[in-house]
Amino acid sequence: MPHRYFTRELADGRAALTGSDAHHLADVMRARIGEEVVLCGPDGLEYLGTVTAIEPGRVEFSVTDGTTSKAEPDCAVTLFAGYPKAGKLEEVIRHSVELGVTEVVPFFSRYCVATPKKEDVKNERYNRIAAEAAKQAGRAMLPHVALPLNDFAAVCKAFADFDVVLFFYEGGGAPLREVLHPGQYKRVAIVTGSEGGFSVEEAEAAKAAGAVTVGLGPRILRCETAPLAALTSVMLLTGNLE
Amino acid sequence: MPHRYFTRELADGRAALTGSDAHHLADVMRARIGEEVVLCGPDGLEYLGTVTAIEPGRVEFSVTDGTTSKAEPDCAVTLFAGYPKAGKLEEVIRHSVELGVTEVVPFFSRYCVATPKKEDVKNERYNRIAAEAAKQAGRAMLPHVALPLNDFAAVCKAFADFDVVLFFYEGGGAPLREVLHPGQYKRVAIVTGSEGGFSVEEAEAAKAAGAVTVGLGPRILRCETAPLAALTSVMLLTGNLE
Repeated sequence: MPHRYFTRELADGRAALTGSDAHHLADVMRARIGEEVVLCGPDGLEYLGTVTAIEPGRVEFSVTDGTTSKAEPDCAVTLFAGYPKAGKLEEVIRHSVELGVTEVVPFFSRYCVATPKKEDVKNERYNRIAAEAAKQAGRAMLPHVALPLNDFAAVCKAFADFDVVLFFYEGGGAPLREVLHPGQYKRVAIVTGSEGGFSVEEAEAAKAAGAVTVGLGPRILRCETAPLAALTSVMLLTGNLE
Repeated sequence: MPHRYFTRELADGRAALTGSDAHHLADVMRARIGEEVVLCGPDGLEYLGTVTAIEPGRVEFSVTDGTTSKAEPDCAVTLFAGYPKAGKLEEVIRHSVELGVTEVVPFFSRYCVATPKKEDVKNERYNRIAAEAAKQAGRAMLPHVALPLNDFAAVCKAFADFDVVLFFYEGGGAPLREVLHPGQYKRVAIVTGSEGGFSVEEAEAAKAAGAVTVGLGPRILRCETAPLAALTSVMLLTGNLE
């Protein structure tokens, strides 16, 4: 299977890799003129790229017509994740990208134990982790990790952008099997809490902002397990896990 | 919410904790005579225990009638997990116990990178991790981690004990949504591979031994993500995640 790279420089039958990707392909993989790789463009399509030039820090390609990847779900799922302690967000990002997430938006809320600290620096690392996971999982689009939202009101405000918002509440809610069906929604949001969970006020605010309150069963899931269970469930019920 | 302990010493309206649990309750939680805790017996039922005596290394209780826990799924799911590298099995055990697994059976197979090493010592640690996760998740039964099986033939031989065996194959298979429905099976087995996946021969052997080959979608899941996605899917489709 040819190697897979994401690039923003792709148009009119030509493409290029620069920076660490160019280094990896030219110096680590020792690619030669005429070799083929899979290039994923900013449009989320997959292209077969043939190496046409190798320069210091830059590899150029001719590319075929882009094709829709079978690896991408037919609905875009954004995960709003309560910011967890320690390095747990990295684990959540890795798993979520494998499971097909489009965007991860961490947020701080009332019972969050974590507090904002050097979030711009961390965000770069988070996006590197997402890109690495996307390559390994064979994704065709590059999922994005947003800078964290600083309170739950900002999360609720973002709900307007989605066809359905699933608010996973430890207090329970509608069975997800009854809420989701294949082909129903194009833009789905999942909201899961941090270690401390949600306050009653936050749960009410989510509902008032249009979210559907759903549960993940009677067992207590850790805050790094809940997003994976939620995302798996959404992908399964929308027919994107088969 | 009262604290939760697992005990094998529970019969005729009386129960006891010993060892580290007795130490935790008596010395860390500073329990007093008359305090209440939740005791989970070897029968998988939940009991309300009232402290009647505190001695060095031993706490005694009177207990009420046992009740069936809402936290337990209505089907017993055994996870046969290809033995992963490094500490990844610990992560799989923790997540699986939260998601409702009954037993985890690691196994070595043709393309396993890990090799057996001090498995009896490791197994004790794995079972401590499972017990800790069971407490945190509010489980009423104590999931068990078996000693690893040394080849895939031993895994296939164990299939006879289950109502359905779901073999999760990277080569794809039947959509899980069409295979599982609520209330259908009492004993379900899930089989997922290690980093190296399964050989074609192993996939054929699983099928010949009665397993249903199923897929987890077009994205490549890491060997520590696949069991969680598989277990979540099984719990969801059998109605045990609501």
